[in-house]
Amino acid sequence: MPFSSYGHVFRITTFGESHGPGIGVVVDGVPSGLELTEADVQKELDRRRPGQSLLTTQRKEEDKVEILSGVFEGLTTGAPLAMLIRNHDADSSKYEKIKHLFRPAHADYTYHVKYHHRDWRGGGRSSGRETACRVAAGAVAKKLLASRGMRVVAATVKVKDVVARQWIEEEIERNPARCPDPEVAAAMATRITEARSQGDSVGGVIEGRVTGVPPGLGEPIYDKLDAMIAHGLFSIGTVRGVEFGNGFACTDLHGSENNDPMGKGGFLSNRCGGILGGLSNGMPIVFRAAIKPTASIAKWQKTMDVEGQPADIRVEGRHDPCICPRAVPVVEAMAALTLMDALLMSPVQEFMPKSGA
Amino acid sequence: MPFSSYGHVFRITTFGESHGPGIGVVVDGVPSGLELTEADVQKELDRRRPGQSLLTTQRKEEDKVEILSGVFEGLTTGAPLAMLIRNHDADSSKYEKIKHLFRPAHADYTYHVKYHHRDWRGGGRSSGRETACRVAAGAVAKKLLASRGMRVVAATVKVKDVVARQWIEEEIERNPARCPDPEVAAAMATRITEARSQGDSVGGVIEGRVTGVPPGLGEPIYDKLDAMIAHGLFSIGTVRGVEFGNGFACTDLHGSENNDPMGKGGFLSNRCGGILGGLSNGMPIVFRAAIKPTASIAKWQKTMDVEGQPADIRVEGRHDPCICPRAVPVVEAMAALTLMDALLMSPVQEFMPKSGA
Amino acid sequence: MPFSSYGHVFRITTFGESHGPGIGVVVDGVPSGLELTEADVQKELDRRRPGQSLLTTQRKEEDKVEILSGVFEGLTTGAPLAMLIRNHDADSSKYEKIKHLFRPAHADYTYHVKYHHRDWRGGGRSSGRETACRVAAGAVAKKLLASRGMRVVAATVKVKDVVARQWIEEEIERNPARCPDPEVAAAMATRITEARSQGDSVGGVIEGRVTGVPPGLGEPIYDKLDAMIAHGLFSIGTVRGVEFGNGFACTDLHGSENNDPMGKGGFLSNRCGGILGGLSNGMPIVFRAAIKPTASIAKWQKTMDVEGQPADIRVEGRHDPCICPRAVPVVEAMAALTLMDALLMSPVQEFMPKSGA
Amino acid sequence: MPFSSYGHVFRITTFGESHGPGIGVVVDGVPSGLELTEADVQKELDRRRPGQSLLTTQRKEEDKVEILSGVFEGLTTGAPLAMLIRNHDADSSKYEKIKHLFRPAHADYTYHVKYHHRDWRGGGRSSGRETACRVAAGAVAKKLLASRGMRVVAATVKVKDVVARQWIEEEIERNPARCPDPEVAAAMATRITEARSQGDSVGGVIEGRVTGVPPGLGEPIYDKLDAMIAHGLFSIGTVRGVEFGNGFACTDLHGSENNDPMGKGGFLSNRCGGILGGLSNGMPIVFRAAIKPTASIAKWQKTMDVEGQPADIRVEGRHDPCICPRAVPVVEAMAALTLMDALLMSPVQEFMPKSGA
Repeated sequence: MPFSSYGHVFRITTFGESHGPGIGVVVDGVPSGLELTEADVQKELDRRRPGQSLLTTQRKEEDKVEILSGVFEGLTTGAPLAMLIRNHDADSSKYEKIKHLFRPAHADYTYHVKYHHRDWRGGGRSSGRETACRVAAGAVAKKLLASRGMRVVAATVKVKDVVARQWIEEEIERNPARCPDPEVAAAMATRITEARSQGDSVGGVIEGRVTGVPPGLGEPIYDKLDAMIAHGLFSIGTVRGVEFGNGFACTDLHGSENNDPMGKGGFLSNRCGGILGGLSNGMPIVFRAAIKPTASIAKWQKTMDVEGQPADIRVEGRHDPCICPRAVPVVEAMAALTLMDALLMSPVQEFMPKSGA
Repeated sequence: MPFSSYGHVFRITTFGESHGPGIGVVVDGVPSGLELTEADVQKELDRRRPGQSLLTTQRKEEDKVEILSGVFEGLTTGAPLAMLIRNHDADSSKYEKIKHLFRPAHADYTYHVKYHHRDWRGGGRSSGRETACRVAAGAVAKKLLASRGMRVVAATVKVKDVVARQWIEEEIERNPARCPDPEVAAAMATRITEARSQGDSVGGVIEGRVTGVPPGLGEPIYDKLDAMIAHGLFSIGTVRGVEFGNGFACTDLHGSENNDPMGKGGFLSNRCGGILGGLSNGMPIVFRAAIKPTASIAKWQKTMDVEGQPADIRVEGRHDPCICPRAVPVVEAMAALTLMDALLMSPVQEFMPKSGA
Repeated sequence: MPFSSYGHVFRITTFGESHGPGIGVVVDGVPSGLELTEADVQKELDRRRPGQSLLTTQRKEEDKVEILSGVFEGLTTGAPLAMLIRNHDADSSKYEKIKHLFRPAHADYTYHVKYHHRDWRGGGRSSGRETACRVAAGAVAKKLLASRGMRVVAATVKVKDVVARQWIEEEIERNPARCPDPEVAAAMATRITEARSQGDSVGGVIEGRVTGVPPGLGEPIYDKLDAMIAHGLFSIGTVRGVEFGNGFACTDLHGSENNDPMGKGGFLSNRCGGILGGLSNGMPIVFRAAIKPTASIAKWQKTMDVEGQPADIRVEGRHDPCICPRAVPVVEAMAALTLMDALLMSPVQEFMPKSGA
Repeated sequence: MPFSSYGHVFRITTFGESHGPGIGVVVDGVPSGLELTEADVQKELDRRRPGQSLLTTQRKEEDKVEILSGVFEGLTTGAPLAMLIRNHDADSSKYEKIKHLFRPAHADYTYHVKYHHRDWRGGGRSSGRETACRVAAGAVAKKLLASRGMRVVAATVKVKDVVARQWIEEEIERNPARCPDPEVAAAMATRITEARSQGDSVGGVIEGRVTGVPPGLGEPIYDKLDAMIAHGLFSIGTVRGVEFGNGFACTDLHGSENNDPMGKGGFLSNRCGGILGGLSNGMPIVFRAAIKPTASIAKWQKTMDVEGQPADIRVEGRHDPCICPRAVPVVEAMAALTLMDALLMSPVQEFMPKSGA
């Protein structure tokens, strides 16, 4: 609680529905004195925008952001930063005819039970469209982090059976799958277009890496840095699993194989993914999120109507056959927001003067 | 923030170090009128207690709980429930000689950097001993959930290469590995004793299942039920990965294979693990947590001292060669605390009278 | 924290500056199923609007509200309710020439020290204009409270030496001072116009009364209902004192004179103002807030410039010679928001079935 | 929420009932590196202890504190600081015979309605005994503040009709009323003993002053420093009113008389009490709290029993005829806790490097 806010000190509150007047975000806890323009935010929104490539939905939203507050003469003032994105290309007609049916693997049924009254147009509040607000806020977080030498990058490292074997950062934005391995990027794109042509969808894995992280971020015991990042990632509707460092694979190793040894001045390996005891250890933070196949598919599926009766459904409309490419900036945003939050929590321990370190 | 509390409405605050006077927990948000005795709590603590079997550490703590407040004449009063567990069998001598060294894969280095001054005895605040407090609080949560027909059960489903293939709930407490599959329970125990005999450790996977969950628990957008549970699980020091339902495996499927269809009255499968759009859907909640091999091993390892110089270290003392069996009640506790929290958040949507449902 | 949010479960987050593009509020925790239109909100905003009478500032803002989210087909959906008010009649020219000076009794100096970079146009973020957002959110809270039979009313009971001696609720909206005593309403108005004609300002006292409050609202120990209401009232920039029931006057009484006796079925007096031990006791909640004389006056005053040098200042522009009449709906809003929050916290204690009461 | 915690970053959680095993507090957000012993805390507890003079209750509790965690080798570690005070001289017999009656002006009725089941021994959770925990935590806050040159002092400035006219800080601890004016200290004591001899009680006003406060503490908009301090003060059960600076008296002045002018380098007066726009302005913070006459009196009063029937009650036992002298350290504690919290929130605005100031 509150239900639509994320973060403790650097905190966002989002609002808006997929087919309502618009969506937006209030970012609170923004330090004063940061140079910020709408272009800084727009650049990131454009990476998440629908219709950017043949691998994504063809809904045409320009996702034009307006900064409503918190910036004066080009600099942040410390006041809450509000950003608004008006909706334009909302086509509710395809939803009108299935509004009495629960789309499988969507939030329709659970929202219906919880709220009784729901905006069924394009998924309403539960639509992935809400993530544009995170990307807008994340753009601010990324710029603040950059001022401290921190950098958050994510990429699609798996689409169905196609797995990236290399991480070449410059390649990521050069291919529509946002794959860091140029040798498999085309195969990833093929898997996605195959799924679309079958009226089906595929999932994948997004990896995130954060460099330049100072040691000591995160708060014992319950706001461990990994717990906070995982919370942020699982708040993205399509995420089904999260792991850090070698993750689930660590369960195949002995402790002597899994522990990261140290040598003169620091760590000699990074199997832990940059976090020890819930605190950053100065190594790059590495995590992966499992992204489920897009729930909206054109194939016929069995479902139930609002009266509890069985029905068949086919979800028409313009959907992403694989959400990974557009989810990459969302994953980056959640990591950046979380790190910025952890960074602003940290000064507590700087209160007393320290002798040595 | 605050750093040592977990939960929003049903909220715990823990304190205490491994070798200090004692550890404890304050549980706030406990409804009045629950029958509660120290025996209710002790029963769960005994499942986490060290020295309970040959698979666990031989430290002998009885972990005897004292309820300090919040209960009057056998019933909770709605006032904060405080519980204290005194430490007894703390042997700091083995830590004395390595206090200038950072134990690999432990929080020693990161706490040193963050706090400058740290209690090195038995890991101090970062010790797994803190999880006893969660189990004590979790016992209260489980009893409250039971009053609504909800039940949280966890088990060890993987130890290194040994994987459970069945889930027979009654078997779990019958074997020291807490394995739900009697056909592999002995093999799991063997993997653990093999590791101990080599001065090494192994990890595994713990699965949790929650039954009797009403639909609609969880809060869009940022306190999705899976996000909250994952936050709780990752706050356990040894957890490296978390997944719900089919988890990472969903990335190998098409949407048409992964979506859970519905039929008359409800869901026909549960690949999503009981959560849709961040809200419980009425099916059992299913999750898995990757548990890393215990960091403390008797083998020699390379490390660094507080001056940044290389050094060799061997962590003596009484350690669990595999923490899975004792982590099972901790995982249950975190799930129970989270569900209780979600349950107490929920009444907001009951405010207005509803027509239909 | 966060800094621009108020409330725990029923929670508002506001944004916007006096002379920026607009101001707004996100209300989270709104139960679904409430009938709500922009007219419901506009009605309350019109009571706070500048230019509504000769006693108030002549700035001409229509304060037209747009609901951006959270309402579908005339009913709230449980999703966050966002409301936007565009600024129109902002005249920054009068502020341009004094932007290097700190206006006495304003937040100019303290914002300058804290944020280094501040929006000086019309007070920027520290402007009373922000309170329109509270009134908008308060309109929603009032409507929800009304559905449970609760009613929040405030009035100006003192302007300088003119003190109301009666509380006739229907009179309040009939005079521009919002005075509940028709016998002194004209004298209050005179005090205000006198001050304006002298280029000066006056303060006063606003009393609030809440009826229909069920007993038991508020949360021991630190979220006592009076502590929460006082927090809300002191968050209004012009409030310098808050008291409940007989307030400071209780210090002149003996305990035997001050304690409220009970008789068959309930309380025989209400000196405590409806709150005992931090919980509502079922009697009307009564509180008073001291409102300071408006800081902006046309008289010459001594001040300091941003370089620390002495200077003289005269604050031109269109200011309220007494803010009480327009602060009345703001006071009501903060009380309504707080009560709604307390009401939504309350169900925790309904968790266990009770025997008797 | 949570209900028994206070503060955002520097945060306390208290537990315990008047006649239970003990009371205690967990302080989270304590910076590491502070020298701290039980004696530092005991010193403050002794100022609040019952039985310290003839003006106070004769209950004999030594209120001996035990630090359970968070301190290692004499220094805080950044881990939560837990402190426990065992109850000893609890005599429940006098409460046994009135347990079915609601003591007037106490929380008995409201707790009964809210929780159904309540610990009636000595007021249970609602007892003023809980404030010992605040004083213990406040001792830590005061020591931290002192390291930054901040000092919190409170005193009794009014007892019934006896009003202090001077503030001589050294006098405060020299007289049992904790009055800063030696010329009226004896008269205050007389008022208190008169009330006791009549089986009655009196109230008064406590003033607090904080010096050495840096400008800029407090957070717009809703965590204004005055709003936070008022919240803390009203969380003390006996507080009925709070004001800052000239408080309610400002309503008798014109703006030109009330505004604090500035001159070279700073403020020329302090009518505002050190807070402008919700932020400290560098002048001493000055506030006053109205303390009601002690509710427990030996005179016969009319009340109601748990069945709703009228009854007569006489509250025997050992009560303070005026709580002001013992409430002075509690008021100091709440102010110190709040300021420490505000101080730890503040670094957000130090994030970006500033040019000038």
